[in-house]
Amino acid sequence: MSELVLIERHAYDVDGAVLLTLNRPDAFNALSEAMLDALERAFEEIAASDARVVVLAGAGRAFCAGHDLKEMRAEPALAYYRALFEHCSRTMLAIQRMPQPVIARVHGVATAAGCQLVAMCDLAVASSDARFAVSGVNLGLFCSTPSVALSRNVSRKAAFEMLVTGEFIDAATAHERGLVNRVASPDELDNAVRTLAATIAAKPREAVAAGKGLFYRQLESGIEAAYALASETMACNMMEDATLEGTQAFVEKRPPRWK
Amino acid sequence: MSELVLIERHAYDVDGAVLLTLNRPDAFNALSEAMLDALERAFEEIAASDARVVVLAGAGRAFCAGHDLKEMRAEPALAYYRALFEHCSRTMLAIQRMPQPVIARVHGVATAAGCQLVAMCDLAVASSDARFAVSGVNLGLFCSTPSVALSRNVSRKAAFEMLVTGEFIDAATAHERGLVNRVASPDELDNAVRTLAATIAAKPREAVAAGKGLFYRQLESGIEAAYALASETMACNMMEDATLEGTQAFVEKRPPRWK
Amino acid sequence: MSELVLIERHAYDVDGAVLLTLNRPDAFNALSEAMLDALERAFEEIAASDARVVVLAGAGRAFCAGHDLKEMRAEPALAYYRALFEHCSRTMLAIQRMPQPVIARVHGVATAAGCQLVAMCDLAVASSDARFAVSGVNLGLFCSTPSVALSRNVSRKAAFEMLVTGEFIDAATAHERGLVNRVASPDELDNAVRTLAATIAAKPREAVAAGKGLFYRQLESGIEAAYALASETMACNMMEDATLEGTQAFVEKRPPRWK
Repeated sequence: MSELVLIERHAYDVDGAVLLTLNRPDAFNALSEAMLDALERAFEEIAASDARVVVLAGAGRAFCAGHDLKEMRAEPALAYYRALFEHCSRTMLAIQRMPQPVIARVHGVATAAGCQLVAMCDLAVASSDARFAVSGVNLGLFCSTPSVALSRNVSRKAAFEMLVTGEFIDAATAHERGLVNRVASPDELDNAVRTLAATIAAKPREAVAAGKGLFYRQLESGIEAAYALASETMACNMMEDATLEGTQAFVEKRPPRWK
Repeated sequence: MSELVLIERHAYDVDGAVLLTLNRPDAFNALSEAMLDALERAFEEIAASDARVVVLAGAGRAFCAGHDLKEMRAEPALAYYRALFEHCSRTMLAIQRMPQPVIARVHGVATAAGCQLVAMCDLAVASSDARFAVSGVNLGLFCSTPSVALSRNVSRKAAFEMLVTGEFIDAATAHERGLVNRVASPDELDNAVRTLAATIAAKPREAVAAGKGLFYRQLESGIEAAYALASETMACNMMEDATLEGTQAFVEKRPPRWK
Repeated sequence: MSELVLIERHAYDVDGAVLLTLNRPDAFNALSEAMLDALERAFEEIAASDARVVVLAGAGRAFCAGHDLKEMRAEPALAYYRALFEHCSRTMLAIQRMPQPVIARVHGVATAAGCQLVAMCDLAVASSDARFAVSGVNLGLFCSTPSVALSRNVSRKAAFEMLVTGEFIDAATAHERGLVNRVASPDELDNAVRTLAATIAAKPREAVAAGKGLFYRQLESGIEAAYALASETMACNMMEDATLEGTQAFVEKRPPRWK
């Protein structure tokens, strides 16, 4: 039996880059319970490792088509669905809680919880032929948990339109609206992902981890409380060895000598 | 005496679509107290009906020019103005509280509380010659209540610019900034509205109602609380008859058989 | 010794416009402690004056390059950094607390806390050759306090990308993303700033002050509380002499006769 997720270290020949691949290509990488388990464990394992940046990708023709509806439909029970969506939400939140930035590498379709994965990642690079939808409403299942992530990426009316129509948007539209950071032709997708991953992997780990954590905490605070949190984070960040060296190097107009 | 608001069922030949028209064309559909009363009652009536989608439009040459300044100015008293703006705000909030999605159909001008109506609707389709402003500041009355809605649609600096300059933006700009979802030529406006209304009317009512309610609640919560709310909403949504049928149909690769 | 900040009244030949210029051109207007002190005092002084609009600019080749790293690096101590970032955050928040709208006039580079200044201003007009970055991460110092302001101007993924890559964006991109309101060629920059400042200076002071204060308060509230705050602000605004005259003039179809 093949692994549900694949973990490749030193991905793209970049030190510190990890490629995490959803590996159910025959099911468009649907998020079965086993897949959610495997993904949650992978996030935990990478979070605790010395990785500096993570790329989340899908094997086969699609990034991810959302939940495994056949599995979901087999056993209709409220308690089961509660546990399932809580499990899925916990897995999604793990992305924001990791110290490393996570880049979604999107090709093919990203639908429902697959589109939610893109929205939850810190960054996203899409193939120009990628398509995005939160299409559950077409089956009578409004994409409520995906709406949490989507509405924190794109404007309110644009998010509501996708949720209530179930219609696809293309990569260029996703880029304009803020759902993805960069779009590349299918041939150039891995180059574009590699460039972004290498840029991030070159930054001091502690600064990136502290900054990412602060970024999401301050977003949920009023601006005064946000500044108090951020001031404390920056003060602590300044005392890191890498930062003292980096700022001293700047003053001396030389490159930093980081380990 | 003609009705201040007109309610047309089976609008655009779409089952479940209701067209609600502001009908004071000689006053550019200004929101007098009587108009706010009529509008609030209409929202209540439609909310309680079996409608699936609402289109909000304006009779005559404009969508809506905001408050009725002549009426407002006749009797200057703080208590009166407090009651008036509370009434207006309650009417605006009724749009979000309805179970049905509300589409603004915008032509001509949408100014001050008229622009606020557009911002409060879940979706908006504009004629390419429509224009939008929150122009109260030109009379010394900063559009504070419209700012609540506008700043939840467009970015902070763009909203502040409109509020402090009172200047108009055109439909293309409103679209780029997130205030409207779609723009159509004046000739195609009703077709564009019809298409969107028909798409929504074809979705199961319960899923749309639960999803709309959740959408606005989760926007006001931190992300963890938002996911908790959304997980519960989706679990309950899965147990609806229409959803069980819709997901079963998906598994069996056939169209859903909905009543 | 030259002044760290310059204050020019009746700037751009506009009554009520104040030009506040960061004046350390040899240091790209870096925000040393003395500069933060001078800036904070200038904001206080202007806030208490009869100014109607403020333009914040930088002398020399850049708008502002952020903190003074040489000064910061000289004395590494956690207590010192805490006090420094609290001081900086307090100064930034003073911009939102002023009754007058503040327009950033951006040319050259705006980096780190310089980019944060742009984001904190109510409005921004940029030269087409201006460039923006939150580049602290390149030295191991994630721009956490700038992230508070930046993430309240541009979408989440776009803000995170700038913060974690440290890369520059140009003026056109800053405009598309919501960080600046208007872009003008270097030759036309002052004309564009003047036009915006003159537009604002022509509005009644009390309405603008009340509206600006409400705008930021309501952004931090749930929508119901926001409407309650805004309704009260508008009711009080209606009772101002300038507003009673402005609305009466509108009813009588004549220009307002304001003092």
